[in-house]
Amino acid sequence: MSHVSKESYDPLTDLLGEELESVDSLLLARLRSEVPLVSEIANYLVSSGGKRFRAMIAIAAARMCGCFEKSHTSLAAAIELVHAATLLHDDVIDDGQLRRYKIAAHRIWGNKASILVGDFLLGQAFQIMVEVGSIEALGVVSGAAMNIVEGEMLQLTGSNKVSLTEPEYMSIIRAKTAALFSAAGEVGAIIADVSLEKREALKDYGTNLGIAYQLIDDATDYSSSSCDTEGCTDFSEGKVTFPVILAYDRGSSEEREFWRRCIQRRDVTPEDREQAIFYLHRSLSLKDTVRRAEEYGVVAKDALYCFEDGVHKRALHDVVVRSIDSASERLFSIS
Amino acid sequence: MSHVSKESYDPLTDLLGEELESVDSLLLARLRSEVPLVSEIANYLVSSGGKRFRAMIAIAAARMCGCFEKSHTSLAAAIELVHAATLLHDDVIDDGQLRRYKIAAHRIWGNKASILVGDFLLGQAFQIMVEVGSIEALGVVSGAAMNIVEGEMLQLTGSNKVSLTEPEYMSIIRAKTAALFSAAGEVGAIIADVSLEKREALKDYGTNLGIAYQLIDDATDYSSSSCDTEGCTDFSEGKVTFPVILAYDRGSSEEREFWRRCIQRRDVTPEDREQAIFYLHRSLSLKDTVRRAEEYGVVAKDALYCFEDGVHKRALHDVVVRSIDSASERLFSIS
Repeated sequence: MSHVSKESYDPLTDLLGEELESVDSLLLARLRSEVPLVSEIANYLVSSGGKRFRAMIAIAAARMCGCFEKSHTSLAAAIELVHAATLLHDDVIDDGQLRRYKIAAHRIWGNKASILVGDFLLGQAFQIMVEVGSIEALGVVSGAAMNIVEGEMLQLTGSNKVSLTEPEYMSIIRAKTAALFSAAGEVGAIIADVSLEKREALKDYGTNLGIAYQLIDDATDYSSSSCDTEGCTDFSEGKVTFPVILAYDRGSSEEREFWRRCIQRRDVTPEDREQAIFYLHRSLSLKDTVRRAEEYGVVAKDALYCFEDGVHKRALHDVVVRSIDSASERLFSIS
Repeated sequence: MSHVSKESYDPLTDLLGEELESVDSLLLARLRSEVPLVSEIANYLVSSGGKRFRAMIAIAAARMCGCFEKSHTSLAAAIELVHAATLLHDDVIDDGQLRRYKIAAHRIWGNKASILVGDFLLGQAFQIMVEVGSIEALGVVSGAAMNIVEGEMLQLTGSNKVSLTEPEYMSIIRAKTAALFSAAGEVGAIIADVSLEKREALKDYGTNLGIAYQLIDDATDYSSSSCDTEGCTDFSEGKVTFPVILAYDRGSSEEREFWRRCIQRRDVTPEDREQAIFYLHRSLSLKDTVRRAEEYGVVAKDALYCFEDGVHKRALHDVVVRSIDSASERLFSIS
C-alpha cells in the first residue's frame, strides 16, 4: 500500500486541475462494460481516490514541452489504467488487505475476478493508445508493463529473503515502480514531439523520481503514525524493503535474528512493530533511506535543466522536493 | 483443457510448415527475460506443443489475401502470446490440473508467478505488434483481449449455474473463445490490406469457426476415451458447457438433480462420469452439440465465398470440415 500522502503533490494538482478532471471522466467512461461485475470492480478501484500521480507527470511533461493537444490526457489515462491493473494483480499476489485505505478488491470479489479485471484494464489502456494512434507511446507503455512484471517476479523470488542486497533491491524498484514513472515522462515528450535529448531527460526525471518515491514509501511504512493506524503493512506482509535491508546489514546477530523471524513469520505482534521501528531509528536506517531518496530526487530535478523555465517545469521540480520533505516531517517530527 | 485433436488441423499444418517454424522461433526469442523464472515458465508454456491454431488462421488468411510480407508471422506470434497469456490466467482461475497433457504451470510455480508471466506475455504480444507498426492490428487484438476477459467474467459469474440458458452460453463462448479466432482472421486481412468486405468476411470466418471449435471441445470432453485417460475435465471442474445445458433442459427432475449435484460438488466419482455420459447420449445432447457446431462450421465456410480459389482458401475450408468430422468419429464410433 502506498503511504505517501496526497498533499505531497499539491504543486501538480493545483496546476492541472482541469486536465485531471478530464482524465477522470475518460477513466469512468472507459470502465463501462456489458458485464456488470467488470464495471463494478473497475469503478471501485479507479474511484478509490488515487493520486493520479503518474497521470500528472505525463500531463505536466507534455505541457512543459509545449503540447496543447487533447491527446496527452488520453495517454495519461492509459498510464493510470496500467497502474490500476498492476495494483489489482499485486493485491492478489501479495494478499494485501487494504488499498488506498479501502478494502482491497480481491477481498470483496475474489482473486479470480481481480485477475480478470486487471487484464481488462490493461486491454483498455492499449485501446486508448490505439485511438491516440501513437505507436511510439504504445511501445513505451507496453515495455514498462513488462518491466513491472520483471520487477515483481524478482521481488517474488527474493521476498522473505532478508539478506537481499542493495543492488538487488534497486533493480527491483527500478523495474517495479520507476519504469511506469519513466514511461509517464517519456510519453509526455512523445506526444509533444520534442528532441531525443529532451525525451531522454524526461525518462531520467521519471526514473529517478520513481525510485525516490518508492524509497519514501518504504520509509513511511515505518512511521509511528502509520503503524498506529494501518499497521506497518510492508512489515506485516513480510516484505523486505530498503530500510530493512540497511537495518539488517547494520544489525547485531540478535537484531538479524529478529528481522529474519519477523519477515518469515508474517504474523508479527504490535510489540514486534515497536521493536522494528526502534531498530530502524537506532541504526539510522530510516534517515538514510530518506537521504538516499533525496539523492535520487536531486538527479530527477537536474534532469529538468534542458527545459525552459515555466509553471510546469517549476511544478515538476517542486513535486520532488515536496514528496521528500513531507515524508521527512512525518517520520522525524513525531519520533 | 482443449480436447480437439492435433490431426484436425492437418490441412493448415501441411501447408504452413515453414511459416509456423518462424512463428515458433519468434516466440522462443521473445520469451527471453533477464529474470530466469519468467523465461522458464514462458518456455514451458509455449513449448508444450500447442497447436498454434490461431496463428495458422492468421497466416493462412493473410496468404489467401495475397500477403507475402514477413510481418504476418509476427502478428500470428502476437496472437499466440495473447492466447498463452489467457491460458496461464485461466488455469489459475479454474484451478486446472493439466494443460495440453502437461501439468499446468501454476501447479509447479504457483499462482503468483503464473499471473505475472501471463502479464509478461501480454506485454510481449503488444511489443511485437508495435514493432510491426500496425495500429489497426493493435486495436483488433487489444479489443479481442478485452472480449476474452468479459467472456471469462460471464462464465465466472454463471459457473455452477446449471440452468444457464443457451443464449447466455453462446455469449460467453463468442467472447471467451471466438473473439481471438475472429481477431486472427481479421489481422490476416489487415496485414494484406484488403477491402473492408473481405476483412468482415475473415472476421465472420474466425468467429464462426471459433464457436464451432468450442462446441466440439465441449462435446469431446465427454467422449468415453477422453474420460478414461484424462477424466472429463470440464465435468470434474464443475463447468457448465453446451452438452450439459441441453441435457439439463431435456432431463427429468431426477436427471436435473444429478446435474445440479455434480456441477456444484466438483468431486465427482467415476460412476458419476459414466452416468453423465449415459444421460448425454440418451438425450442426444452430444449429437446435437456436434450438429450445432456443424451449423456454425457451414457459416464459417460460406464466409470464404468472396475469396478466389487457391491452396490457402481450400485449407481454411478443409480445416473446418476436419475439425468437426474427427470429433464426430471420436464421439460416436466408440460409444
